[in-house]
Amino acid sequence: MTTSTATVRVFNFSAGPGVLPESVLEQVREDVHNIRGTGIGIMEHSHRGKLFDAVLEEAEARCRQIANISDDYAILFMTGGATSQNHLVPMNLLPEGGHADYAVTGKWAEASQKEAEFYGTSNVAYTSKPDNHNHVPTQDQLKLSPDAAYFHYTSNNTIAGTQYHYRPETPGDVPLVCDASSDFFSSPDLDVSTFGLIYAGAQKNIGPAGTTLVIVRKDLLERQPRPLPTLCNYKVFAEKGSRPNTPPVFPIYVVSLVFQWILDQGGLAPIAERNAAKAKVIYDVLDELDFYNPHAQLGSRSLMNITFRTPSEELDKAFVAESDANGMANLKGHRSVGGMRASIYNAFPPEGCDALAQFLRDFAAKHG
Amino acid sequence: MTTSTATVRVFNFSAGPGVLPESVLEQVREDVHNIRGTGIGIMEHSHRGKLFDAVLEEAEARCRQIANISDDYAILFMTGGATSQNHLVPMNLLPEGGHADYAVTGKWAEASQKEAEFYGTSNVAYTSKPDNHNHVPTQDQLKLSPDAAYFHYTSNNTIAGTQYHYRPETPGDVPLVCDASSDFFSSPDLDVSTFGLIYAGAQKNIGPAGTTLVIVRKDLLERQPRPLPTLCNYKVFAEKGSRPNTPPVFPIYVVSLVFQWILDQGGLAPIAERNAAKAKVIYDVLDELDFYNPHAQLGSRSLMNITFRTPSEELDKAFVAESDANGMANLKGHRSVGGMRASIYNAFPPEGCDALAQFLRDFAAKHG
Repeated sequence: MTTSTATVRVFNFSAGPGVLPESVLEQVREDVHNIRGTGIGIMEHSHRGKLFDAVLEEAEARCRQIANISDDYAILFMTGGATSQNHLVPMNLLPEGGHADYAVTGKWAEASQKEAEFYGTSNVAYTSKPDNHNHVPTQDQLKLSPDAAYFHYTSNNTIAGTQYHYRPETPGDVPLVCDASSDFFSSPDLDVSTFGLIYAGAQKNIGPAGTTLVIVRKDLLERQPRPLPTLCNYKVFAEKGSRPNTPPVFPIYVVSLVFQWILDQGGLAPIAERNAAKAKVIYDVLDELDFYNPHAQLGSRSLMNITFRTPSEELDKAFVAESDANGMANLKGHRSVGGMRASIYNAFPPEGCDALAQFLRDFAAKHG
Repeated sequence: MTTSTATVRVFNFSAGPGVLPESVLEQVREDVHNIRGTGIGIMEHSHRGKLFDAVLEEAEARCRQIANISDDYAILFMTGGATSQNHLVPMNLLPEGGHADYAVTGKWAEASQKEAEFYGTSNVAYTSKPDNHNHVPTQDQLKLSPDAAYFHYTSNNTIAGTQYHYRPETPGDVPLVCDASSDFFSSPDLDVSTFGLIYAGAQKNIGPAGTTLVIVRKDLLERQPRPLPTLCNYKVFAEKGSRPNTPPVFPIYVVSLVFQWILDQGGLAPIAERNAAKAKVIYDVLDELDFYNPHAQLGSRSLMNITFRTPSEELDKAFVAESDANGMANLKGHRSVGGMRASIYNAFPPEGCDALAQFLRDFAAKHG
């Protein structure tokens, strides 16, 4: 196996699909032709064969080990991205005539809330829209109803660069439902046992695009509030071990490799420490210099997606172009926020954050 | 790039996910670390970036080129496998109170028919169930209704090893809908312009598991017979160019490589010739020797999946074990049919069919 190509890699600040660990990429290169001596590549194995039985079993076992997830929860590997959960969550959990609460803290959170209207009433428990989603609510700001079917929030908002640094509490036994796509397994704070359901598109912290992880408390599988097509039914996925039909074999396999990488790093505590240190390097420079304007309010700042602007749109453009020319790719922000966004998920290397911090200083000195 | 691992590859008769072309696997190995000099691997590229813009555009252009598909049709890359189309087709095409016709020629065809009942009435235009699906109907045997919302059939039945060798005609302007998962792009006979909608899970003839190709006549996108969640709406996928959200980047990329491979082979005509020759090598031995019992009736035999039994279940087991020990993997048949199944999709090498033919002779001589 050659590794020479690794030397040409750039620092990839993509908001997702995002950077993967180098060791995972090396393993993929090995396994594409012949995985575990089977004489067959990982993409070509039957999803009902022994090799994929093992891959799937390992993926689930590693997932449980990383976050100490009990048997009270089913772990499902689905498809369709987190966006498909916008209809699947209410289809499976929201009774006809019922209502659910949603915290609207970004474009995706709003999409989740609106989609629930197909199946019942979705109440806006909080919205940060008037402030262009530059913060998340405090617990006190959430208007939660004790008879809601569930409360849905988005733990990290990729576009705005905001993140909850606490876990919302719900009244009574209202299940907490979370879109954790962009900060899943980035810290041990995401204690699964306090959730009814958590989901995450794989392509930010845990793998490539193509599979969506759904962790759901098993008692919620029994709600079945309406007749559900087979592939829309969480219970079917749970009963069939994520294989009601051919699952996305390759994406699941890569997710399992990333899970193993997380375990090899020592698990979520060291991962979280590293993530906090990585983000601090960048936020410190943004705060120290007068030149930059961070988008997210203090207290809501994301450790995964750092959003900021220079004094002008022209300089924003120059920043993106010059950073790209210096081996730092995909720093352009989402059009709804403007400016720049540095996405520094688990696998993003600390050296890349150091490089960006230095570039932030150099750019401000040159253009300030 | 080393190619030494290629020498250890076995003949993989998997029914799907199935074998991929060697040249495709080589390209994947290159592109996992650094695709097209971007310094970023294919799995790590933003789905909104220039690299993936190009990948997606190429995938669609190659698809259109292979089968001469006109702009009257939208080409969608979706997820969820062909099974997800079991609910998406009626959701999008079957009006409330309407009915559709289904030909039930196997387990998956039956699942398609049953799932449509969530949205309207699904009539069984023909069923081969009493004969354990050992044939497909003739045109005359199909009971088709002139006011059906569509007629759905399964062009190749993976489990039973049967295949239509004609294209069914529908009365009036009833759209023809086809699950072509296991014989898609295996022959130029699949003339897209005669269909309302064709879909195929990628993992048999055109790529790895994780994306589902849907080709749909654009006027059908306007039916919108009910309010549809965003990710259940073909029209949304068409309008957003398969990117209403993050699509399965890597599977789509591999599909595009396979499309290029098909073009490099000279397109569908030479592919079909090669497929027919490959199947003939095996069917000829099955017919010549008294020892084997092919499952599919003459006239319905699949060129993709060849199903057969030995005189006893014990010998079936011995066949699977001995062939596996001789470098021919995954020949065990589906439990509902028993015996063996040799899946020889586009990318399956002719040498593998020759090897199986010889093994069929040797096994019969030894055990006959």
